Amino acid sequence: MSHESVDPGTSSQVGAGRLRAIQVGLLGIGTVGGGTFAVLARNREEIRRRAGRAICIATVADRDTARAAQVVAASGVDAAITADAWSVVQDPAIDIVVELIGGYTIARELVLAAIAAGKHVVTANKALLAKHGNEIFAAARAAGVMVAYEAAVGGGIPIIKALREGLAANRIEWIAGIINGTSNFILSEMRDKGLAFETVLREAQALGYAEADPTFDIEGIDAAHKLTLLSAIAFGTPIEFDRAHVEGISNLDALDIRYAAEFGYRIKLLGITRRTPAGLELRVHPTLISERRLIANVEGVMNAVLVKGDAVGSTLYCGAGAGAEPTASAVIADLIDVARTLSADPEHRVPHLAFQAESITAVPILPMADVHTSCYLRMRVLDRPGVLADIARALADQGVSIEAMVQKEPGVGEASVDIIMLTHPTIERSVDAAITLIEALPAVQGRVTRLRREPLL
Amino acid sequence: MSHESVDPGTSSQVGAGRLRAIQVGLLGIGTVGGGTFAVLARNREEIRRRAGRAICIATVADRDTARAAQVVAASGVDAAITADAWSVVQDPAIDIVVELIGGYTIARELVLAAIAAGKHVVTANKALLAKHGNEIFAAARAAGVMVAYEAAVGGGIPIIKALREGLAANRIEWIAGIINGTSNFILSEMRDKGLAFETVLREAQALGYAEADPTFDIEGIDAAHKLTLLSAIAFGTPIEFDRAHVEGISNLDALDIRYAAEFGYRIKLLGITRRTPAGLELRVHPTLISERRLIANVEGVMNAVLVKGDAVGSTLYCGAGAGAEPTASAVIADLIDVARTLSADPEHRVPHLAFQAESITAVPILPMADVHTSCYLRMRVLDRPGVLADIARALADQGVSIEAMVQKEPGVGEASVDIIMLTHPTIERSVDAAITLIEALPAVQGRVTRLRREPLL
Repeated sequence: MSHESVDPGTSSQVGAGRLRAIQVGLLGIGTVGGGTFAVLARNREEIRRRAGRAICIATVADRDTARAAQVVAASGVDAAITADAWSVVQDPAIDIVVELIGGYTIARELVLAAIAAGKHVVTANKALLAKHGNEIFAAARAAGVMVAYEAAVGGGIPIIKALREGLAANRIEWIAGIINGTSNFILSEMRDKGLAFETVLREAQALGYAEADPTFDIEGIDAAHKLTLLSAIAFGTPIEFDRAHVEGISNLDALDIRYAAEFGYRIKLLGITRRTPAGLELRVHPTLISERRLIANVEGVMNAVLVKGDAVGSTLYCGAGAGAEPTASAVIADLIDVARTLSADPEHRVPHLAFQAESITAVPILPMADVHTSCYLRMRVLDRPGVLADIARALADQGVSIEAMVQKEPGVGEASVDIIMLTHPTIERSVDAAITLIEALPAVQGRVTRLRREPLL
Repeated sequence: MSHESVDPGTSSQVGAGRLRAIQVGLLGIGTVGGGTFAVLARNREEIRRRAGRAICIATVADRDTARAAQVVAASGVDAAITADAWSVVQDPAIDIVVELIGGYTIARELVLAAIAAGKHVVTANKALLAKHGNEIFAAARAAGVMVAYEAAVGGGIPIIKALREGLAANRIEWIAGIINGTSNFILSEMRDKGLAFETVLREAQALGYAEADPTFDIEGIDAAHKLTLLSAIAFGTPIEFDRAHVEGISNLDALDIRYAAEFGYRIKLLGITRRTPAGLELRVHPTLISERRLIANVEGVMNAVLVKGDAVGSTLYCGAGAGAEPTASAVIADLIDVARTLSADPEHRVPHLAFQAESITAVPILPMADVHTSCYLRMRVLDRPGVLADIARALADQGVSIEAMVQKEPGVGEASVDIIMLTHPTIERSVDAAITLIEALPAVQGRVTRLRREPLL
């Protein structure tokens, strides 16, 4: 399959130029693959004007060849179709392999095979890179090929490029991101409409914003995959997904969203990574953010990443974090980047993980008990004298000080009330100990709800 | 001046590596130059870990050699100091010239001389590029050198990189940006505190946010310089600053900020460029934006650029738009980028204006009268029967339809009232004609105030 079959008009212009068309093998033509195919076809002239050469999908590999044929036909351009991804990664005519299959197993094998065959790789697979990125980047380095993954974090937002290149002058201090659109949609709907988690999850599934098995999205795993990549390229460390603290939103009570709002806060599922003298923080959890902060107002399926650098200060990047064409936008930007590096010697390229491989240094990742956070605590207590004093004593004994507190009036006929406290920043092990003490008090009913609060300054 | 004098520790590591240190000549060590020097010194190890080689300022040229010596000494590293910028641009030991002098004249001559001497150039000079960019980029192309200018737009926000590379898959539809921090600070303060323009301008000058001669900032000229560059790289057109429609904020009445708020809008000085079938819009003016939009909530000296691409949808980039270290962050990111391209052949580089030079195509820029906008109209009228009917008739005759209207009650003892109208989108020449008719009505006092309103969807 030569580029002529994709776009005769473009190919003749390229023939008049200096650079041959780039031949791409596309593995997987589902949602993002279909978007990539469609955008490359629709904007081929715009892309050629920028890249100085055509970028053509020569071959599409998908188990569902009928669906692949349909997508290709709908785009009005031509490409070979095969069910055999292995033939694509070994095809001598292919310059770049785009992996959009997902998952850890076959995707890993195909990516490693493509690298071994000297192909450059573009992937949107955050799970693969979070789990096997160190191995994949080492193989790519040994083979002298690029592995580009802008689409793996933040969909179409060029956040990897911003961190790796745009902010390369900075010592990065921290990153905080809304990097899972599904959970942000659910939280926005819970707040807007006062609905329960389960109700909104079903709505999100009906709208196609959540998958049939939503675990990765709602339990924070997808956000942790992405955060792990951001952390490595921000701080020049290996990828250490297994060390991330991960909490999702499935246990979040609509009540806490309402109480947080009374204090002027919104709750977002944030991925946070921060450099501290003792080590790195790497954590995903529901977080209270002042509603006056821009990122607190990023609603629905939108993503946003806030980066604090020592020179630039805070910069914020927002946009669609998922979807066929936003993700395709990032995949194709990577294709153009890789096309430009084809002739460059590897030592002049932007390193895979932003830092030169020999400069990557492991930094300890702090256990959550060693992280300093401000907390939101909610507890249900019997409405009788002395309870508040006991709770305040438990907190004080652990060195946890209270910044704000509200005690709700009991409902009609109710004997217990909600107490909500915001604490000053404290090491988490002290809060853990205080919560244990509070939950042991006879007047305290059930568990204490603890959420974290971040100033993001 | 060799890199050894800058950082012996780094140089020995570089000696052990493969790439020699990059030698930079810095022209101008005022605010941004001083910041660049300081950040390069402070983060030299972080930068070397990313770039794979040291980046050293070998020589600083500034008329004020005493100030230069002070800045250099404060950074704890060494550099030669000269009052003669011409010697720097011709020094064979220099790889990259950083131009931070500002202005159109000497800066232009020095940049052209550096290019002629085969140096790559990094500049933060938006005025220079908006006026002479076509000439400078043509010279750079002929000489096979790079001219990088991330710092020219949006301070430390990597917006040029996002547009040129991160969004390269997209057909850009429009860009709207808060790209002048001084005017955004003034507008934020006017709204927050209900103060008059002149009062806040004096405050901004006292705080160092506005210059003694604030014309470029408050009259929209600086924003138009930046917008012109964004427009060229978004649409693949030449730089045409002289065709921009430019209105500043110096005539903005605090009353209109208040009335706009009553309708749910904030007023921002926006630079807007948009692709339409008839040509390009290229305009800077105060703009009403719904307060529910994220960009409407970007306050103070912060900048924000909203980009709409056909594949990615809307993406937003926010951060400090000026200041010593934020701007230095962008200058140094450019230095790292250019360092990486030193060995690349020019046709593989990212083109200066995002599109390949031979693909740049002039597109007509629409005169403001041909642009479609929604308007905010305020007029003061005698409070007597029939006036509103006459005004409505004038608008209807020109095909301008009203989306919302408020008529204020007259003040005690006053015979006239304010009428505020929001119009549906109409071609501006029709609004111009309607305003002429309205101002001719006997019951209408003074001029009609017209502001534009943008949905940014």
